[in-house]
Amino acid sequence: MHKEFTGLHEECGVMGVYAPGRADVAQCAYFGLYALQHRGQESCGIAVSDDGVFRQHRGDGLVGEVFSPDELARLGQGNMAVGHVRYSTTGGKNPNNIQPVVVCHVKGNMALCHNGNLVNANALRREHELNGAIFHGTTDTESIVYTIVSERLHTGSTEEAVACAMPRLAGAYSCVLMTATKLIAFRDPTGFRPLCYGQTKDGGYVVASESCALDAVGAHIIRDIDPGEIVIFGEDGVRTDRRHCGKKPSLCVFEYIYFARPDSVIEGRSVHAARLDAGRFLARENPVEADVVVGVPDSGIDAAIGYAQESGIAYGVGFLKNKYVGRSFIAPSQQLRENAVRIKLNVIAETVRDKRVILIDDSIVRGTTSARIVRLLREAGAKEVHMRISSPPFRHPCYFGTDVDSEENLIACRLHSVEEIAQAIGADSLAYLSVEAAHALAGDSACRYCDGCFTGRYPIGIPSGQGKNRFEQPIHGKE
Amino acid sequence: MHKEFTGLHEECGVMGVYAPGRADVAQCAYFGLYALQHRGQESCGIAVSDDGVFRQHRGDGLVGEVFSPDELARLGQGNMAVGHVRYSTTGGKNPNNIQPVVVCHVKGNMALCHNGNLVNANALRREHELNGAIFHGTTDTESIVYTIVSERLHTGSTEEAVACAMPRLAGAYSCVLMTATKLIAFRDPTGFRPLCYGQTKDGGYVVASESCALDAVGAHIIRDIDPGEIVIFGEDGVRTDRRHCGKKPSLCVFEYIYFARPDSVIEGRSVHAARLDAGRFLARENPVEADVVVGVPDSGIDAAIGYAQESGIAYGVGFLKNKYVGRSFIAPSQQLRENAVRIKLNVIAETVRDKRVILIDDSIVRGTTSARIVRLLREAGAKEVHMRISSPPFRHPCYFGTDVDSEENLIACRLHSVEEIAQAIGADSLAYLSVEAAHALAGDSACRYCDGCFTGRYPIGIPSGQGKNRFEQPIHGKE
Amino acid sequence: MHKEFTGLHEECGVMGVYAPGRADVAQCAYFGLYALQHRGQESCGIAVSDDGVFRQHRGDGLVGEVFSPDELARLGQGNMAVGHVRYSTTGGKNPNNIQPVVVCHVKGNMALCHNGNLVNANALRREHELNGAIFHGTTDTESIVYTIVSERLHTGSTEEAVACAMPRLAGAYSCVLMTATKLIAFRDPTGFRPLCYGQTKDGGYVVASESCALDAVGAHIIRDIDPGEIVIFGEDGVRTDRRHCGKKPSLCVFEYIYFARPDSVIEGRSVHAARLDAGRFLARENPVEADVVVGVPDSGIDAAIGYAQESGIAYGVGFLKNKYVGRSFIAPSQQLRENAVRIKLNVIAETVRDKRVILIDDSIVRGTTSARIVRLLREAGAKEVHMRISSPPFRHPCYFGTDVDSEENLIACRLHSVEEIAQAIGADSLAYLSVEAAHALAGDSACRYCDGCFTGRYPIGIPSGQGKNRFEQPIHGKE
Amino acid sequence: MHKEFTGLHEECGVMGVYAPGRADVAQCAYFGLYALQHRGQESCGIAVSDDGVFRQHRGDGLVGEVFSPDELARLGQGNMAVGHVRYSTTGGKNPNNIQPVVVCHVKGNMALCHNGNLVNANALRREHELNGAIFHGTTDTESIVYTIVSERLHTGSTEEAVACAMPRLAGAYSCVLMTATKLIAFRDPTGFRPLCYGQTKDGGYVVASESCALDAVGAHIIRDIDPGEIVIFGEDGVRTDRRHCGKKPSLCVFEYIYFARPDSVIEGRSVHAARLDAGRFLARENPVEADVVVGVPDSGIDAAIGYAQESGIAYGVGFLKNKYVGRSFIAPSQQLRENAVRIKLNVIAETVRDKRVILIDDSIVRGTTSARIVRLLREAGAKEVHMRISSPPFRHPCYFGTDVDSEENLIACRLHSVEEIAQAIGADSLAYLSVEAAHALAGDSACRYCDGCFTGRYPIGIPSGQGKNRFEQPIHGKE
Repeated sequence: MHKEFTGLHEECGVMGVYAPGRADVAQCAYFGLYALQHRGQESCGIAVSDDGVFRQHRGDGLVGEVFSPDELARLGQGNMAVGHVRYSTTGGKNPNNIQPVVVCHVKGNMALCHNGNLVNANALRREHELNGAIFHGTTDTESIVYTIVSERLHTGSTEEAVACAMPRLAGAYSCVLMTATKLIAFRDPTGFRPLCYGQTKDGGYVVASESCALDAVGAHIIRDIDPGEIVIFGEDGVRTDRRHCGKKPSLCVFEYIYFARPDSVIEGRSVHAARLDAGRFLARENPVEADVVVGVPDSGIDAAIGYAQESGIAYGVGFLKNKYVGRSFIAPSQQLRENAVRIKLNVIAETVRDKRVILIDDSIVRGTTSARIVRLLREAGAKEVHMRISSPPFRHPCYFGTDVDSEENLIACRLHSVEEIAQAIGADSLAYLSVEAAHALAGDSACRYCDGCFTGRYPIGIPSGQGKNRFEQPIHGKE
Repeated sequence: MHKEFTGLHEECGVMGVYAPGRADVAQCAYFGLYALQHRGQESCGIAVSDDGVFRQHRGDGLVGEVFSPDELARLGQGNMAVGHVRYSTTGGKNPNNIQPVVVCHVKGNMALCHNGNLVNANALRREHELNGAIFHGTTDTESIVYTIVSERLHTGSTEEAVACAMPRLAGAYSCVLMTATKLIAFRDPTGFRPLCYGQTKDGGYVVASESCALDAVGAHIIRDIDPGEIVIFGEDGVRTDRRHCGKKPSLCVFEYIYFARPDSVIEGRSVHAARLDAGRFLARENPVEADVVVGVPDSGIDAAIGYAQESGIAYGVGFLKNKYVGRSFIAPSQQLRENAVRIKLNVIAETVRDKRVILIDDSIVRGTTSARIVRLLREAGAKEVHMRISSPPFRHPCYFGTDVDSEENLIACRLHSVEEIAQAIGADSLAYLSVEAAHALAGDSACRYCDGCFTGRYPIGIPSGQGKNRFEQPIHGKE
Repeated sequence: MHKEFTGLHEECGVMGVYAPGRADVAQCAYFGLYALQHRGQESCGIAVSDDGVFRQHRGDGLVGEVFSPDELARLGQGNMAVGHVRYSTTGGKNPNNIQPVVVCHVKGNMALCHNGNLVNANALRREHELNGAIFHGTTDTESIVYTIVSERLHTGSTEEAVACAMPRLAGAYSCVLMTATKLIAFRDPTGFRPLCYGQTKDGGYVVASESCALDAVGAHIIRDIDPGEIVIFGEDGVRTDRRHCGKKPSLCVFEYIYFARPDSVIEGRSVHAARLDAGRFLARENPVEADVVVGVPDSGIDAAIGYAQESGIAYGVGFLKNKYVGRSFIAPSQQLRENAVRIKLNVIAETVRDKRVILIDDSIVRGTTSARIVRLLREAGAKEVHMRISSPPFRHPCYFGTDVDSEENLIACRLHSVEEIAQAIGADSLAYLSVEAAHALAGDSACRYCDGCFTGRYPIGIPSGQGKNRFEQPIHGKE
Repeated sequence: MHKEFTGLHEECGVMGVYAPGRADVAQCAYFGLYALQHRGQESCGIAVSDDGVFRQHRGDGLVGEVFSPDELARLGQGNMAVGHVRYSTTGGKNPNNIQPVVVCHVKGNMALCHNGNLVNANALRREHELNGAIFHGTTDTESIVYTIVSERLHTGSTEEAVACAMPRLAGAYSCVLMTATKLIAFRDPTGFRPLCYGQTKDGGYVVASESCALDAVGAHIIRDIDPGEIVIFGEDGVRTDRRHCGKKPSLCVFEYIYFARPDSVIEGRSVHAARLDAGRFLARENPVEADVVVGVPDSGIDAAIGYAQESGIAYGVGFLKNKYVGRSFIAPSQQLRENAVRIKLNVIAETVRDKRVILIDDSIVRGTTSARIVRLLREAGAKEVHMRISSPPFRHPCYFGTDVDSEENLIACRLHSVEEIAQAIGADSLAYLSVEAAHALAGDSACRYCDGCFTGRYPIGIPSGQGKNRFEQPIHGKE
């Protein structure tokens, strides 16, 4: 299912560009963000450094909405750029939460883009506030900036300040940071979120959340940035600081299953291949007799093909998704709502009529969408509908940058057994991928996985009191 | 390939709504147009009849751009509505060319939506002009309106006027027409363009170019309107006038191959199934040894699956199309153009690396897009690329509502042999579907096909002088 | 008072440009329309002839809203242009009512702009409809076009067709008409609405409703076009056809009192000077003891200065009008409405405190605005408020292009005496200009005046049945 | 002349609202900003406190452009609001410079609006940066916020923190500050910029830069806030802290001459009356024989009336300013520029033809506009043009919140004598108001004036190095 229609959201994608001379760095970031748009559709921004003078533009909306030709031209050429796409989980429409965060501090300008989530954000913020800090937004990204700037006061360079700051930052952070002269990429020691870099044909460097953004700008991938690593792109070339590397890594397994774009390669593993394998494992673990395997577009398609290949059951195209339905779509009135069910997604009846159908999706969040799709299939003549999910059931919150729905909304938390869920969504049978199979998805990958949302076991400790920003709560009787 | 990026365009989709009482007819048309958006992305419009008072809104752009919530609310409820999506071939941005054409004449109001193209438009227009007619736009649709109105002067009803007008109209026209009290759908005797109707749960009727629009508004299809038929929806129910039926029909075969949405059913034949069959026929007629079959998204996917099924070669997902690239996308600067080739379409290298690839597309127009895609596959490591096209080569103009590129641009006109074309696009081999197979695509269909764009043999005569409107040419020394 | 806030509206302004060679005619029309914007704020449009190829752009809104730099550039250079600003009285948001009306007919292209109102529009429309004509909008302008085109069929030129058409057109029409090779300006024999022309420094010609538009584009005025005259601008220079001249003219007296811009000169008479005289006559006819004379901005200012000069009482600036309040202004909520009265218009208390104030306005329509202004003055400390109106009271409808409010809303129709009106608006005294003085406003003018809205005596006969377009009425049981 | 067309700009207007209960505070701020729009047209913003939860909206453009009905509704009701209009002198389009500045600090939320300019902004910023502070924008307002927050760490309330911060702030600052529970207004001890407050009918309080904003929301003025005073609006009513009062005040004299709206009353003195007096003084100091006195709209009108009254020469309306020319106006092409001179401002020739004209304006900045206006008068037939300026000549920079043009552009700096300036602008004679008369403008006012821009003598010391933000300069070889 299209991400906009589910309760599951990645929070960010980051992009950094370092050009050997003056170049179209804003355009380069723009095209990279287009390739990363699936990681965040709510807001975006780009900052450019033109010989140390920073220009920026940010706004609510998709990359194509926020950047007009005029705005992109105004950003102009430069030596470096950083860009960000964002799905915001909290803070509503606070424009100050849109990244890059661009600031001036005692030693110069700085622009930071962050993908991930700190678990000690509140404590860190408090620490800075007690020192007189003021915050313009409600994100943890501003706390990262303050921590780096506070280290910068007594260190000789920004990269050293980053290295000193990292032990103070707990949680997930894959970041690109731009100063007047350097582009710095760094990734938390656990490596929750991906980050890689490559080189363009004219000798520049590009850092991005996913390799598909490198492809988009004609760069070839060099490698993933390692968990804990700091990579510095500057006049003296590329340097690395690995003092925080070596901790047991735990990449979010959902990057393979759901978040990343299938044409990306993360830690040496093709996302598309991992999804085909998810389908194959699913077929092995949960076989069922049927006539056709169909996937829920877009993200269930790959696993459906894998399931079909492994099971020998024919793969079919079960649905037509209306690609014109976007954010300007006007919801049907009460009178039409009941009938107007097939606008966004229509069944191709020819594929499923009088057949036993295996329906593949990558996840079930609230269950309402799944129930609707199962009903559509039956109305189109499917004799049986067997649902197979290419991930284990969500049962626990994610603290590392994924916006899973609250537990009271998660169908796998509300209902006790898979059978109950099957009944709730109207499927003849239902099965999930096992946690073990999820781990095997990227068996040849260089890293291990975080499966906290399935198991409740997290790779790092979670402080209590992870709540909303206290200044967004009503305040009675205090200043 | 996405239609926006090729030189092949359908010109229109039409929608009509007849409600038994006052209902959300504007919304109903709006959702139907969303489902028909693939038939025309340049402009659109809706007219509503509210007890004989007409309201309309039209504009350049997609349905989601032209209709804001305010505009849709202003159209409001009513008894009937007609809607239109359009790709304009001539006339540029003349706002008067946007349909529905809404006019007042001596007997009342009329709104008309037209899909197709007249071949005697210029002669017809001249005839009306000599009688004092003035034209606001440059489309043949206005000539249809004038012809009906001129017949209305001496006939007792609009449906009778339509029946009298049809022999004067030569070419393709699938139309919906709204008066103060009736909705009238009519289709030219040759039946070039599809038109069908169905019924909603609350007893209303919906007419649409394709059945997917009926699905979108919760209507069940009753049947296709026959070539030459006039169907009248009014207070006294549904009536039909078949006086012009019975001529040998010739539906455009490209509706199955390319234009229509795969979830539509035309003349009893599933478009998706026809495309699977196109792939199967292609595999039988043009086999080649290979490791994987991939389709160019979106319209090459179905035929690729059919080809894989028939050949026994594995089907693979070869490409990722960026679904966020739309009309607001800013083209790369000269500096970046060479590199930024994979923004709209990226190869999934895992699928094709070190493999012999069969690449399926539905057509080749200019050849430049095909050459680019073949090159992408090779850069991603494909050992061989064998291109197979699920239609015969275009070699002749279409006079019936398809905007095929001019002959000097058509690669199949410029180059003499299939081998030359293969070389031009860089493929190891190339083959097209045979014309015979194209005719067999819908073997169980009730109608025959027009294959004029492949063979140059048209089902009806084409008058000479099918040119642009003469008033869009510079005029020297005359008034 | 600003026209947007009253119930009195002029309907149109027209502009025509004829360049000796290819020039920035679209820009020239654009600047002219800016100068004529006070004559119509609802919609506007420009059509350009570039060697006979017509381009147009029209839309709802002010000139500055409808024409973006891109749109203006798209219109480009050409040989001629016509432009129009409009306040629509009927037909709501029908986009087909926006002028210029641009059409093709048997002999070529034509674009027409019209200021005024026909009194035989319905009969004329019926006549054309019976001949098979179709109408896209609901304005009488389309009837003018049809009449000219019908004459064009059997005449040798458009100017001859205009001359033949004029006897068939009853009412007010000051028009500019563009063909592929000529610009034609014509004015009805009664001359209800103004029309003049001038020459630019590079030898081109400009036609406009008011001379202020000539000033705006650097043209010097040559003369007013006479009532009944047809002036043709073409390759052979300027020609005139005076066959319909010589009838007793009757210019709308309200052009001097209210509609026209004070810097315009109409029929040799300065509008500003006429308004000063209106104030002087008012002082002579209706003297009162007072300390200060203030005018309601903007249109009461000139008469207030005249009143002060004649009476010897000091002129004062009584009000500050907020020039930023435009159509995007959001009306106050219920909670604030009572208080937020001084946003659009604030009293300068210093001017009126503890004084006897003479308040000058150019008209009273419904009376509600006047009552509000009188109350504001009293709240600011005025001891007495004597209202003087620089026109006679409206008591009758205008059929010639002014949108006076309906009789049931006109305070001068609802209430019997001036005393009653004074009481209703809370003034200590009230007096209007006499009809005789109104006639004397432009004593040295070449023409006479229509005073039908004051006297009910119209210079030409008014056919019965001047109603709304019948196709905008609900239709029951007919087609 | 309209401010947009000159080189002289006020920088800001501020507005604060305190409601006794929950009320339409956002709307109230919105209407107040409409009344203050003349003080800043570049950007604006409003922040609302709804029981301590802050919502904000800010943007580039006029109040009517930035606030759509949806945005205003989203801000909703609340207990307090602050608003700001801004003309930015530096920093270009940095969106972080738009006010209110809304931040979170250790003790809660804070929103600040500032009118004025600090002269120690750079030093203050450096001091905070050395303590680890980061700045999002380039304005001095952020430094004010940091200073208050740093004092807040060791004081018991925000009002005490403001009191402690004020001695650290050098320069001009009239501010409104909103916390979760209080609205605090404070004004620098010199009182460069105005600030007043009043009460609404329902018992709330409103603070504003000018009294016209109180009028707009139906509040009656209570009094001006004194130079150095801190006024606190909270649950316990209105309190004042006068510890910094008593210094010799120096209000900017240009507030009376040019910046403020004529319907405002500042320090007990009507701005309109002060301008009439400026004209009277000018007539006494610089008499000349003439036939008519005209003012340049809008800000020269009042002084022209005063000059006419004092001199006995008739007052005339010399110009018509096109009120529709706004920021969407498209500048003429090269071809038209020479001719299209009277679009924004046209002469009413009737007033000046064959007359000796006294032309009153409030200032001459570069002289180009004045030269153009004098030329317009001569072209319209004026026999003589005697220019009189209702202020002394600018010769020195303003450091307190006015954006006077740079000295090399100021005509009074470039040219040595008044005669030379008269010659440069083409006037027959020229005279300025004396500095003494400027001081006498508000003789009954409670305060003295800053005349630094005329005399170069400033009421407080100006630190050297008042330059642009250093981070907007290119940086070579440093980080």
